Amino acid sequence: MHRIRTTKTETNRAILLLHCPDKRGIVASVTDFLNQNNANIVSLDQHVDHEEKVFYMRVEWELEDFGIPKEKIAEFFGTLIADKYAMNWKLYFSTDKPRMALFVSKMSHCLFDILSRYTAGEWNVEIPVIISNHPNMQPVAERFGIDYHYIPITKDNKAEQEAKEIELLKEYEIDFSVLARYMQVLSDDFVSRFPNKIINIHHSFLPAFAGAKPYHAAHARGVKIIGATSHYVTSDLDEGPIIVQDVTQCSHIDTVESLVRKGRDLEKIVLSKAISKHLERKLLVYKNRTVVFN
Amino acid sequence: MHRIRTTKTETNRAILLLHCPDKRGIVASVTDFLNQNNANIVSLDQHVDHEEKVFYMRVEWELEDFGIPKEKIAEFFGTLIADKYAMNWKLYFSTDKPRMALFVSKMSHCLFDILSRYTAGEWNVEIPVIISNHPNMQPVAERFGIDYHYIPITKDNKAEQEAKEIELLKEYEIDFSVLARYMQVLSDDFVSRFPNKIINIHHSFLPAFAGAKPYHAAHARGVKIIGATSHYVTSDLDEGPIIVQDVTQCSHIDTVESLVRKGRDLEKIVLSKAISKHLERKLLVYKNRTVVFN
Amino acid sequence: MHRIRTTKTETNRAILLLHCPDKRGIVASVTDFLNQNNANIVSLDQHVDHEEKVFYMRVEWELEDFGIPKEKIAEFFGTLIADKYAMNWKLYFSTDKPRMALFVSKMSHCLFDILSRYTAGEWNVEIPVIISNHPNMQPVAERFGIDYHYIPITKDNKAEQEAKEIELLKEYEIDFSVLARYMQVLSDDFVSRFPNKIINIHHSFLPAFAGAKPYHAAHARGVKIIGATSHYVTSDLDEGPIIVQDVTQCSHIDTVESLVRKGRDLEKIVLSKAISKHLERKLLVYKNRTVVFN
Amino acid sequence: MHRIRTTKTETNRAILLLHCPDKRGIVASVTDFLNQNNANIVSLDQHVDHEEKVFYMRVEWELEDFGIPKEKIAEFFGTLIADKYAMNWKLYFSTDKPRMALFVSKMSHCLFDILSRYTAGEWNVEIPVIISNHPNMQPVAERFGIDYHYIPITKDNKAEQEAKEIELLKEYEIDFSVLARYMQVLSDDFVSRFPNKIINIHHSFLPAFAGAKPYHAAHARGVKIIGATSHYVTSDLDEGPIIVQDVTQCSHIDTVESLVRKGRDLEKIVLSKAISKHLERKLLVYKNRTVVFN
Repeated sequence: MHRIRTTKTETNRAILLLHCPDKRGIVASVTDFLNQNNANIVSLDQHVDHEEKVFYMRVEWELEDFGIPKEKIAEFFGTLIADKYAMNWKLYFSTDKPRMALFVSKMSHCLFDILSRYTAGEWNVEIPVIISNHPNMQPVAERFGIDYHYIPITKDNKAEQEAKEIELLKEYEIDFSVLARYMQVLSDDFVSRFPNKIINIHHSFLPAFAGAKPYHAAHARGVKIIGATSHYVTSDLDEGPIIVQDVTQCSHIDTVESLVRKGRDLEKIVLSKAISKHLERKLLVYKNRTVVFN
Repeated sequence: MHRIRTTKTETNRAILLLHCPDKRGIVASVTDFLNQNNANIVSLDQHVDHEEKVFYMRVEWELEDFGIPKEKIAEFFGTLIADKYAMNWKLYFSTDKPRMALFVSKMSHCLFDILSRYTAGEWNVEIPVIISNHPNMQPVAERFGIDYHYIPITKDNKAEQEAKEIELLKEYEIDFSVLARYMQVLSDDFVSRFPNKIINIHHSFLPAFAGAKPYHAAHARGVKIIGATSHYVTSDLDEGPIIVQDVTQCSHIDTVESLVRKGRDLEKIVLSKAISKHLERKLLVYKNRTVVFN
Repeated sequence: MHRIRTTKTETNRAILLLHCPDKRGIVASVTDFLNQNNANIVSLDQHVDHEEKVFYMRVEWELEDFGIPKEKIAEFFGTLIADKYAMNWKLYFSTDKPRMALFVSKMSHCLFDILSRYTAGEWNVEIPVIISNHPNMQPVAERFGIDYHYIPITKDNKAEQEAKEIELLKEYEIDFSVLARYMQVLSDDFVSRFPNKIINIHHSFLPAFAGAKPYHAAHARGVKIIGATSHYVTSDLDEGPIIVQDVTQCSHIDTVESLVRKGRDLEKIVLSKAISKHLERKLLVYKNRTVVFN
Repeated sequence: MHRIRTTKTETNRAILLLHCPDKRGIVASVTDFLNQNNANIVSLDQHVDHEEKVFYMRVEWELEDFGIPKEKIAEFFGTLIADKYAMNWKLYFSTDKPRMALFVSKMSHCLFDILSRYTAGEWNVEIPVIISNHPNMQPVAERFGIDYHYIPITKDNKAEQEAKEIELLKEYEIDFSVLARYMQVLSDDFVSRFPNKIINIHHSFLPAFAGAKPYHAAHARGVKIIGATSHYVTSDLDEGPIIVQDVTQCSHIDTVESLVRKGRDLEKIVLSKAISKHLERKLLVYKNRTVVFN
């Protein structure tokens, strides 16, 4: 489907995400570096974890009028600032459009929510491919004009099928992947290739009800609130750094089926919020926890 | 688009919605009537408004084994029970599939949310037509295989254009309409033809910020929470009976634009919840307020 | 402290709580029994668990004009209705004022919340005694004019000290106990004497972070929402039937200390809500889950 | 009542709150000023309103090791930084304990919540006086050992009685006042003397249901969510800058009385959160809106 609205024009901006051991003077150094070079700072957010003694920062500025040529910024910032503070940092440009792959199984609610936002031009992203272990969502992919690869997985063929998937991610030049209710556990080998590059939605309020059938477990336990959790995938199942969580009320009148129904709305919104944060370069991971900038 | 899942098979059930002046014995009379005729009651919910002295009830039962033939239930219930208590009542059958019309303007988020659920077979509904005062959503309608009628409205042609719309609703045998961010005020004449048959989504927490540009007003007032409200349309703008409301937090860092963005997620979920309740025959209106059964 | 407002005068009402195997005709039988005897039903709520095939009901009616004398209701209902349906049931009278014991340790927030409501006459309850394993809350008890018993507990003296506590509960004619952040695990023996008669508040969103130091665990896991859970105490620690849960948002900027601070507000409200439901006779327990009537 | 816990020892810190026209270099200038003088920055938060072109900042640092003597900081900061950027600023010290007056009428829930936190040493505040237009809360004040002044107000004596209140605020050296469900409208003259120094709790989700009897109005309108709003008092009734808002769900089964009951829990928590923010010097007011720092 052609876009119903063109993606909102991103002005020409740079985004810097960094963390480093906390020290005096980091904020002053970074802001001074930007000011000296005539940056128009659009947003600046920083956080100090006083326990871990780690400094986190996100700063976004307009490149128009900026004194350092775009292709030289990394070199200059690295040499003049980052090395001095032993920073772990990344520089992004708003004009680069990340490429996202979707993994789905049989359920459509998260897929539709993502493709609706994509079609409406809500995100600065390209979605060239959908990968699935089931054929069910192929018609949806077709109507939205996105390639669909059906890669069924069994215990026996898992390694070779995942190899195909990895190949596809390379071919389509994918920057990060989203598991939109993809009901297959990725192998450690797969996951370890893409650190903080795979976003999953788990249909419970983690760490409660990790693993299979969380709504059944929630119903059996008689909880009065259910939740959904989006997180980066790590080799520990459902143990990766949490990005967004949300909850909704339930009661004794809920059945497993009605929890599933209520949960769908949570899942899709929570997953899409996580994707937004990732695309806006507002996520930093440190020691299995996320810093989520505003 | 063909359905990706067939609509969930509704078993053969009857649903009775009623209200009447409160009196002793109504619950016993109704349940006794059903039991005597071998009804398998699936759900029963009742409420008494002690101030207004009004009794409300919703009861749903399986028709298999029920002693009264389907086409005779209304007659029997009316004569034996309803008349006795001066009930205002309606009988529905789960095998009847309501026909819903969508009214949209330029925004796609509510439309996509509704069509996604429709395609996934989440609701027992038929959506044969989308009506709009703008051409923008036509491509969306096409891909979902739904007729789209572009009926532009100006001050001068409003009466005749609304006449066309009313004609369309008749042609398509529409049972109820949903204004999915339809940015045109319906005339009193239009509204008065369809009491409790038009569901609207207003992008504020009513009664706060009724009327135009509620996100601008919310931003100007500096609220810390924004909301969305679905309601039945009456001739008083934004004053109809409220069905569902929900809210989300905001803060000083929000701009009008970010409120609009946050609000979209609220609006689509709140509107779809209201549609669900309407389709499940769980809504009763009395004196501009709704009873929303579980 | 003398009450600043007298407890709201409870009108003379009966409350019936029951559950039994689901069968046709129960609602009709119970309501008919009440109607025949001229009951003015104030509220009626019922629920069927179709999986477990269990019927639950709560009905409240005014005793004025009721045809059966108060002291005969149990006998009549038991013989005429309850036995027929193998009901598990209890009859309560609004004029009976339950007697509640409080168990506290060093923290005051839940204690103050409870005593504030008590002093304001918000609940139909008598609180004659506070029991603690620490002396810290004695001044609070004194100012509210409530007996305080300091019963320190060590591994070695646990059995005999609990025996003293049980003796106190008997002496003060206690109907149920509330652990208002009482930081001592009660022995199985103690707990088994008071099934569904001890309400606890756990400072996490159970089943997440059961056991000690939940805020530390929540912080370490990096959750974006924290919660509190009130439940009936069973011999399985933090595994009893959940009564009320609530949550609040947190983020990377929260420290363990700020989570503790946020959590206090949740804990006190969630615990007091559970006490309200218990006092209003709106809780039924079945297979480690609660039915919470409106 | 003696404190059950001494107020948490505040370390020796300075807090700077400022806003000014947005310009390049402010963050760098302020942080550089602090770093040059060896400040250990504990927290730094800033915000730019790009529409209004206003820069807001809050920075907190430890005074130990700080190079400028405490009593000279204002002079130095004013001369070296603030004047340069035309800043509107205030300097606070954590060792100064603000003095708060409480205004109450007949309801105790907010009063108890505040006094409970005060007694538990949760806040860095002194509460030397409670003022009321009713005698009802005198016993509560006595038990907490706080002076209580009963100043009844009629249409005829309002001016002179408010003069007495203003005298009391002077006598007790009050820094700011909290209206804890004080059911008297303060005169414009009174309010204008204490800009951003009077915090009120309104029992609705403002701007919905401003004015008298908001729960009655909410019930009549049939809303599905009710709220509470804390705000600074201005001469426009219920129109002052909003500090904190929160909401809770309601439904058709709620009566005005049950809304009042639910609302009490909201009101007390929302008001106490606003007081916390005020005491932590995390509130800035600009054009009738608040910036609420984390």
